[in-house]
This record gives sequence, C-alpha cells and structure tokens, in this order.
Amino acid sequence: MQDLNTAQVEQVTLNFPKRDSEWPYQALGPAYAAGIAYTDDRYVPVADARISLLDWGFTRSDACQDTISVYDGQFFRLEDHLERFERSWKSLRLENPLSRDEVRDVVRKLVAMGGWRDAYIQIIMTRGTPPVGSRDPRLCKNRFHAFAIPYVWIANPEAQQRGLKVHVSDICRVPAQSVSPLIKHYHWLDFEMGLFEALDHGQDTVLLKNIEGYVAEGPGFNVFAVSDGHLLTPRSSALDGMTRRTVLEIAKEVGIEAAEVDLSVAALQDADEAFLTTTAGGLLPIATVNGATLGSAPGSVTGRLHGEYWGRRASGWLSSPALYW
Amino acid sequence: MQDLNTAQVEQVTLNFPKRDSEWPYQALGPAYAAGIAYTDDRYVPVADARISLLDWGFTRSDACQDTISVYDGQFFRLEDHLERFERSWKSLRLENPLSRDEVRDVVRKLVAMGGWRDAYIQIIMTRGTPPVGSRDPRLCKNRFHAFAIPYVWIANPEAQQRGLKVHVSDICRVPAQSVSPLIKHYHWLDFEMGLFEALDHGQDTVLLKNIEGYVAEGPGFNVFAVSDGHLLTPRSSALDGMTRRTVLEIAKEVGIEAAEVDLSVAALQDADEAFLTTTAGGLLPIATVNGATLGSAPGSVTGRLHGEYWGRRASGWLSSPALYW
Repeated sequence: MQDLNTAQVEQVTLNFPKRDSEWPYQALGPAYAAGIAYTDDRYVPVADARISLLDWGFTRSDACQDTISVYDGQFFRLEDHLERFERSWKSLRLENPLSRDEVRDVVRKLVAMGGWRDAYIQIIMTRGTPPVGSRDPRLCKNRFHAFAIPYVWIANPEAQQRGLKVHVSDICRVPAQSVSPLIKHYHWLDFEMGLFEALDHGQDTVLLKNIEGYVAEGPGFNVFAVSDGHLLTPRSSALDGMTRRTVLEIAKEVGIEAAEVDLSVAALQDADEAFLTTTAGGLLPIATVNGATLGSAPGSVTGRLHGEYWGRRASGWLSSPALYW
Repeated sequence: MQDLNTAQVEQVTLNFPKRDSEWPYQALGPAYAAGIAYTDDRYVPVADARISLLDWGFTRSDACQDTISVYDGQFFRLEDHLERFERSWKSLRLENPLSRDEVRDVVRKLVAMGGWRDAYIQIIMTRGTPPVGSRDPRLCKNRFHAFAIPYVWIANPEAQQRGLKVHVSDICRVPAQSVSPLIKHYHWLDFEMGLFEALDHGQDTVLLKNIEGYVAEGPGFNVFAVSDGHLLTPRSSALDGMTRRTVLEIAKEVGIEAAEVDLSVAALQDADEAFLTTTAGGLLPIATVNGATLGSAPGSVTGRLHGEYWGRRASGWLSSPALYW
C-alpha cells in the first residue's frame, strides 16, 4: 500500500478488443436477440427458458455449470471447458443425458442461431426430480440445460481502464470441506452478500477469503498480485478458472515467474499491481484494495499479460471458429 | 456405543398420527393432485411450475425458503414460519413483493385448492434477474414463489418405527462464516454428497459436522441426543428448526433438561437414545450412528416427547385450521 497523496501511479493503456457491435447477422427473429436457451430438448428464446420449481438443481442447488466464451467468432478453449464440465458433473455423480459431442453440438447451435460474434454461454447439469414421494438422489432424472447470450463484461469499460476498486470481505468462500472448489457450482450467497458489502462501500466488486483467512476468489473471477515482477495467486479454495490457467501458461511461456501461494490481504494491498481473471472479460486491472491504492493500475506486467492474452486470442490461439448459418 | 451382540435394546412403540389418505376432498382436477404452485402471480399445477433459467435464485442460489406443514387440517406454527421467512429474506436484502398477509393468503389458498388434510408447503424468495447487461444485485426484481404438495415423510413408516440408520460424514455443513445458518437457504451440495455417502454405506440418511468437527445437522433436520435423561442438541452451525424449537419448548414444560452444546460424534454414539426433528415427520428415532447401535430406539424419552408432540398437535396446540372450499 502506498500513501494516497504521494503515490507515483504508473499508467499503462490497455487495448481491449473492439466489440463488434456492428455485426449485422441475426439468424432468428428479435425474440431471440437477448439470448437462446436449450432446455427440455428444445431451443427457446432465453426469456422463455425455465426449469421446474421442483428440480433439485434449484431447491438444493444440486447443479453445476461451465461458462464458455466466443470472441470475434472464435470459441476459446472449448474442449477444455467441456472437459472441466464433465469433471464437475461426474464429481456430483450426475449422469449427462447428452454425450460430449451432443453438448458441443448444442453449444455451437446456440451461437449459430444467435449469430453473435461475441457470446457468453453456460452449460448446466441439474439433479432433476425424484419419483413422487421419494427423496433418493440416485433416482432423480438428471437434466442438461444451456443458454447463450451476447457477451457480458464483468465491469464497464471505464472501470476496466481505470482498474477496479475491490473490497475484501470477511465473508469466507464456501470451503473445500463443504463443497469441492473444483466443481463449478452455484453456491453463491457468500459472493452475493459480499457484493452488497462492496457496493455499500462504494466499491466495484468483492473478494472473499478462504476459511484460513487468506484471499480466495471473487464472484466469477480469480485474482493475481504482481510483486517484484512475479505473479502470486491463491493456491487453494479457489476455482480452477480457465483464464487463471491461461495466464499461468502465458506467464511460463514469456518467462514471468508465478507462484500459487497463501495470499494475505496485506500482501495484496502491498502489491505493485494486481488484476483479476475471468471468462467475462479476460484480465481486468485492480486499482484499489479496501481503499488502498496499489502501486500502479494498470501496471506494466498486467499490461504485458493483457496484451499477450488478447493478442493470442486474436491470432486464434487455443481457439476454434464458431459456425454461422 | 454398545456392543451390537449384547445390547439390551429397549423398544418403545411410537404412535404416529394416522395419515388421512381417505380424505375424499379434491377441489381441482387431477392435474392438481400432485401439487399446486404459485409463481408469476398465477396458480398452476406443480408440474407446470417453473422459474427462469436466468433467475439468480437458480444461477447463484440467491434464494431462501420456509417449509410449512398442515396435519389433519391444521397449520402448525404458521405465524412463526412466516416470521422466520421474513427474517431470511430480510437478511438477504430481498424485497418481498407480497405483504405478510398476502403470503399467508397464498399459503391458505394453495392448501384449500389442493384440498389436502396433510400438506407440505414451501414459500420461496428468489433474487430474480437484473436489467440486461447489469450484474448489480440491487437492480434485480425479486420474486416470490410457493408450492404445496401432499405431505412428505422424510423416512418410510418402517424406518420411522425401527429408527433410522444414520451415517456421520466428514463433509462439513456450509459454515456460518460463509452463509448465516439462520437463513433457510438452498446450499445443499454438502448434504447431497453426504447423502450419497450414506446410501453407499447402506444407511438411511446423513449428518454433517460443523467446521469445528462437531455434529451439525442433516438434510432437512436437526438432531438430539438423550444422555442420562437429558437432551443435548448442537448449539451452532445448525438451522433454527421449527420442530427443534418445539421440542425444546416441550422439554422445558414437561421438565426434561435440555442443553445446546458442542456435540461430538462420540457423544452421539454413546447416547442412550437419539432422534431427529423435522417438519417432514416431527420426531424420528435414530437406531444406529455409523453402524453403532444406540442404547434404545426408540427410547423412553424419545417416546415421551414424540407422544407430547403429536398429542399436542392433535389437540390444536400452536395450530390454526386450514380452510377448505
């Protein structure tokens, strides 16, 4: 943490990819413009997509998901997402009625039907409902659902450029002792309450701690600190985020040292730079932590990784083309 | 814990209330027999009740509920349930579009329309969805839902009489550091995975520990041990269950000492008797804990409290009549 008045804040300009709002393609009518869902084996406008009020995916949050992005007509790490999704539902002892090929097909069709160059897709498994009178989870008919909507940024463009103001809450992320953090699940009340706290404090978003008191993750993102040119990121109680994984891979390739550590709030506040990673925005710089201004936002390491990330994506790295009708 | 071969298992016969399956009344057609829901301001057959796939009540499990029972045409502690429900949604900073009178009215109408003498009702609040492109929880339109179905017992009649075989899992109940246990929420993946474990071990149901390693609660129930004639029940990390509360009140009135304690697994296994408490069944005796047979099942204290509970309910204690058309 630097003194707010004397801090020499280095300023790097981030080149975010242009959003192709001009893309004229729309395969279906306006009812589908806001999004398309696949549920009960049918494609419907997302506004009409529903799940049963009795599905244990709702009444027990007995569900898992994966979030996939398309940018400039390219899926990013599609097979890795499909693999992580399978790991999630298998861990929950769910049976997917669709094969991996069928899931991939649904994902591709949703994007093709929407015609979006930039899209945000969720694939979802729910426990479903047991026979009437039974409470046996083994007897439930498991269900697959999916939806695609135009790409969502986790923060608005101003906040992306100036860096996010992050509140660290004392609320703990649901611990691994309760639910494996390797399952991408919907237990988010901790994040939701933390988000209210952050907004109460005039901050943009929130980071939760793990049960041991170290920094864990935020709603939909992982976090990295940059200290003396090295990357530090929480080692446990955090989702195996796809963008986190990507940043660690890029860092290795370009020779930036990275370590998975117990990251204290003090260490994050003392960092030279920090950023968060998310499918809904890539790398986003952090400007302040609990009101303390970081060394620089965005800093040079953040800027370099940000450039590598979007540059590689633009060149088709780990990407596969979306198909349009 | 006693030796399985030499244990002198005292056997008390529990008089469970007769299920009035003969009740001939059915206000609506057969489509409504399985249950009725109130959602989007309409009453629909429960099979048709849906919530939006995009409701944060699903995609963030940002929701709370309360479960109410009707037995022999009598609501039990209806106002207490409505009050606890309000505490839950206020804690989550939700706004209920319905007043308490309107919620009560929906609950009464659901039961009247179903015509059930014995019913299980859930009232639910979900965060709803924010405006397109926003991720601000303050901007979500919160929603109220409810459903009523014929009364569900948490265990079948045989298991109720012989006592339940309970598995204690090493999985921890989502801790208070993450989500307040005073909110009746849907974060149940810990219970669900524990339930699979229990079934794998040939047991009827599961108890989770709290993060400190003491016995916490099971899926939809609290637990009591009886030791030297006294009641012991977990003091924290457990839902403020309505039947738990009722048993503590009855115990006080009839002069059975009760204490809220840190209950170890060993203490539960060493107990003379044990039982669980739930809206879906009242008091249900526990026969074994991790395979160890308890002193008696059902034991005399369990039998006495069970008799008091159902006897008082039959006499209209803390009850209000359901209305039928």
